[in-house]
Amino acid sequence: MIKEAVYHRPGNNFAYAYDSETIHIRLRTKKEDMRRVSLIHGDPYIWKKGEWQTEEKPMEKTGSDELFDYWFTSLQPPYRRLRYSFKLESEKETAVFTEKGFFTEAPLDEIDYHFCFPFLNSADVFKAPQWVKDTVWYQIFPERFGNGDPSLNPEGTLPWGSEAPKQDSFFGGDFQGVMDHLDYLTQLGISGIYFTPIFKAHSNHKYDTTDYMEIDPQFGDKETFRKLVKACHEKGIRVMLDAVFNHSGFYFAPFQDVLKRGKNSPYSEWFHLWEDKVSTTPSPNYDAFAFESYMPKLNTENPEVKQYLLDVARYWIEEFDIDGWRLDVANEVDHSFWREFRRTVKEIKPDAYILGEIWHDSMPWLQGDQFDAVMNYPFTNAVIHFFAKRNISLTRFKHQLAHVQHMYPAPVNEVSFNLLGSHDTPRVLTYVEEHKPTAKLMYLFQMSYEGTPCIYYGDEIGMTGGEDPGCRKCMVWEENEQDQELFVFLQNMISLRKTEPAFGSGGSFQFMDYGEELLAYEKRSDEQRLLFFINPSDQSKKAEASARRSIERDENSTVHDDGIVVAPYGYVIIEL
Amino acid sequence: MIKEAVYHRPGNNFAYAYDSETIHIRLRTKKEDMRRVSLIHGDPYIWKKGEWQTEEKPMEKTGSDELFDYWFTSLQPPYRRLRYSFKLESEKETAVFTEKGFFTEAPLDEIDYHFCFPFLNSADVFKAPQWVKDTVWYQIFPERFGNGDPSLNPEGTLPWGSEAPKQDSFFGGDFQGVMDHLDYLTQLGISGIYFTPIFKAHSNHKYDTTDYMEIDPQFGDKETFRKLVKACHEKGIRVMLDAVFNHSGFYFAPFQDVLKRGKNSPYSEWFHLWEDKVSTTPSPNYDAFAFESYMPKLNTENPEVKQYLLDVARYWIEEFDIDGWRLDVANEVDHSFWREFRRTVKEIKPDAYILGEIWHDSMPWLQGDQFDAVMNYPFTNAVIHFFAKRNISLTRFKHQLAHVQHMYPAPVNEVSFNLLGSHDTPRVLTYVEEHKPTAKLMYLFQMSYEGTPCIYYGDEIGMTGGEDPGCRKCMVWEENEQDQELFVFLQNMISLRKTEPAFGSGGSFQFMDYGEELLAYEKRSDEQRLLFFINPSDQSKKAEASARRSIERDENSTVHDDGIVVAPYGYVIIEL
Repeated sequence: MIKEAVYHRPGNNFAYAYDSETIHIRLRTKKEDMRRVSLIHGDPYIWKKGEWQTEEKPMEKTGSDELFDYWFTSLQPPYRRLRYSFKLESEKETAVFTEKGFFTEAPLDEIDYHFCFPFLNSADVFKAPQWVKDTVWYQIFPERFGNGDPSLNPEGTLPWGSEAPKQDSFFGGDFQGVMDHLDYLTQLGISGIYFTPIFKAHSNHKYDTTDYMEIDPQFGDKETFRKLVKACHEKGIRVMLDAVFNHSGFYFAPFQDVLKRGKNSPYSEWFHLWEDKVSTTPSPNYDAFAFESYMPKLNTENPEVKQYLLDVARYWIEEFDIDGWRLDVANEVDHSFWREFRRTVKEIKPDAYILGEIWHDSMPWLQGDQFDAVMNYPFTNAVIHFFAKRNISLTRFKHQLAHVQHMYPAPVNEVSFNLLGSHDTPRVLTYVEEHKPTAKLMYLFQMSYEGTPCIYYGDEIGMTGGEDPGCRKCMVWEENEQDQELFVFLQNMISLRKTEPAFGSGGSFQFMDYGEELLAYEKRSDEQRLLFFINPSDQSKKAEASARRSIERDENSTVHDDGIVVAPYGYVIIEL
Repeated sequence: MIKEAVYHRPGNNFAYAYDSETIHIRLRTKKEDMRRVSLIHGDPYIWKKGEWQTEEKPMEKTGSDELFDYWFTSLQPPYRRLRYSFKLESEKETAVFTEKGFFTEAPLDEIDYHFCFPFLNSADVFKAPQWVKDTVWYQIFPERFGNGDPSLNPEGTLPWGSEAPKQDSFFGGDFQGVMDHLDYLTQLGISGIYFTPIFKAHSNHKYDTTDYMEIDPQFGDKETFRKLVKACHEKGIRVMLDAVFNHSGFYFAPFQDVLKRGKNSPYSEWFHLWEDKVSTTPSPNYDAFAFESYMPKLNTENPEVKQYLLDVARYWIEEFDIDGWRLDVANEVDHSFWREFRRTVKEIKPDAYILGEIWHDSMPWLQGDQFDAVMNYPFTNAVIHFFAKRNISLTRFKHQLAHVQHMYPAPVNEVSFNLLGSHDTPRVLTYVEEHKPTAKLMYLFQMSYEGTPCIYYGDEIGMTGGEDPGCRKCMVWEENEQDQELFVFLQNMISLRKTEPAFGSGGSFQFMDYGEELLAYEKRSDEQRLLFFINPSDQSKKAEASARRSIERDENSTVHDDGIVVAPYGYVIIEL
């Protein structure tokens, strides 16, 4: 037994309240070291004759990565209190793992040995909004989705789709353009729009905010935006906005004042200045995003800045009824600010969604006091590498996803924002070198994985494009230039999330083992067990499985009484 | 190399801001597996020709426990941003440990591989009050310290010290009794008093609060308390009160109302009732501390309860200028409540000390948003077992303390509340079967260990007593019955904390290896290195060490040019 590999620490992803009655406990052990793991548990205050009274519950192995196995169990302690240890059984040895180390038998004479979940207070339950799990997002880059009101076109606006976008092109996309196509979105079946920034800014991408309280005039005015949100809500579509609170744009008035007056500016404390006079060359003499002089870091610890940004957070919810905030470069802003941000947002709209842009391990932001979820880039990477680049094996793909899955508590995973592409990456179809069957497999996987999927505008009709600006082409509205087959495919996937109980957020996800080349996983809900087979190779694959019902498959795959045949780049979904 | 034993996750005790410029990084590896560990680090945004620019810094092994070695380094990134990985060198192998697993060489083509400390925002620095490190606490159980105003004696008060206390004895201790002896405390040299509860209650220990806004009349009135705090402050003594917010006393008016009217009481939501009518037998049909009907758990999620308790927290600081709150059964109250509690307290008095009573791993409460410290019971246990019960080896003692030391960030350890005994445990002298030389060694260790030490009233004059009520005897004021030698010893220890820069909080603590039976450790500050030798055995021990100066030793130990001899149960402190 490799004792050094055994890890558990209450809190984070290892012991947490799932809901106001349920506690989840996880344990990490060396891969393939343990034959059985059980939880020894009891109420800390139930004793008989000097001995703590416990029960034993087997734990289930829920996944493995390169080095470790992960074990899980869920329980509902009657008095909402729990002390526990782990009984570990390897091939040759049995040991009990406690907060104070390893023992041959559980020490039941003193409670202090055991891990503690002192009390399940419902105030501490991680509560992400319920609706998010069932939402399919659609990311809109407003400058490029639809030009519905040419009167708003900025100077130099190019005719829609007339040429490949450059870094500084304008095509005049606006709110009216979105409004004009809401029926299209409804038809596709999505239920949430994530808008990249819409506030007043200089660039076409609007990440360089100059006024957080104003709509960029190229998109419309506040009245139009209000109408847009209302129209979305009427169609059952939620609206999430993008906020850049880490830094302002260069032309943000307070920064312009600081540029002129340096430390004499009344706004000097709004930023992190290093010297009395402000200089942008050769590199900025103030804190900035990276070393970009045009992205001065906001001092979110300054009470005025804090008030301003919290007012912003409140204003767009109160006045326009938006449903969520996506937070750009969220990791570089202080945790204290995000705690106040959450309190502010949830006070006005308890079920607003707070989504952080963080690329690395995000546990410190996901303790229930800051974000509901983060952009799931580790998911993106794993899917791109496995399906598109084909440079990781199925085993490694499963390891990577299992690792992410066990890195966070279940309630976080359930609302994790699963994207395949965005305005910052090549488009899916370009990644797969326009091999549409592979793209479909990726969408199928995304739509049936745990979390909340997001489609980047135009991906559903087969748009292509490399790195920015290639991925920011104008949305194609000519039906004959849209890939209708792909559209129908995605429409169908979204619809399956709604009609099959276990397909979407209702089902818990578990990889299955069908060999080294056939990706298989189960989704299980109380009423349904679905088995997914995805074949990302150019060879057809057979698998034994007895379907009660065939849910969906590509046209070349077949389902028989005693098994299935998954065609090259094919897929089969059956109900067990 | 046992890769599975390698652990690091940013946040908690592994990567944290030490101050607004300094980041601490720790790594855990299998014991004696690595010969060298270095930190590969750089600013995430400094790149050259597609390669991330890094530096390498050796890490120092700062301790070991049963299974693991712990490595540490501290750095001050010029732009307050940090990405990093670890270079591990075992006997046979070199590997780089990143957020995405192990590599043979550091992957420098993509930043995402590396652990991330995104930005050192000073708002997120763990800030315990500076004064706490330099404080020596003195715990007073007010009913038993001094009876200064017999007019307040409750009915049935026994003559001071006339008999051994029983569970329900009253001896009439009060605030005047404390005031009368402040000079005594000043003489001893302590600089903080921790009072067990003083609010209105039924019992002699007052943990069964009936009114959090009133002083128990047996102690005096608010005017006397105000005077007492003022008198303490004039003598440079801080005052910490004990708050029982997890549960109220049985006779707390809201609970009495609920007892009568059940769910019809306007206070029904102040507790966690299970049924319409409230019943206390055979066991309570409401949440309670353990299953004690007379300790009904308060519903700290209820806005009225929250407001009431936060008002309490505020009131005693605002009105009486107390310096800290010690929080009873702190682990069973919700984290949300403690976050609001901290905001409330620190808003009025930014340098107030918030100390939680938690017996187990307390990391979730020590993230900077709740407590400044917890009662260091693991320290208590290790010291009692090693010195008094003699049932753990020196090695195990060192392992246990190293484990606790590496379990929390340094700023937490610096203000950890190190107690040897309290109103809930036998007294030190009783633990050691009245073997005074051993008790002295324990005090010496406590006074020179990192954290803030606390003396339980009377221990300094050699009072004895077993479990409650034995440990709650009346303070002995007859000088000829006080152990003056012990008093002078403790007085001297406290004084050394003030005069020798590295003796107390100014010195960083590190165990040294002088064999299996001689406890040795170094305390090091910028200006001084002190070496402590403690011999808890009945055999004298020699050690090689060249002292620049002998700081302190027992009468039988000797310091020579080329080494020292530590007498049985002796100690030597030298400066290097």
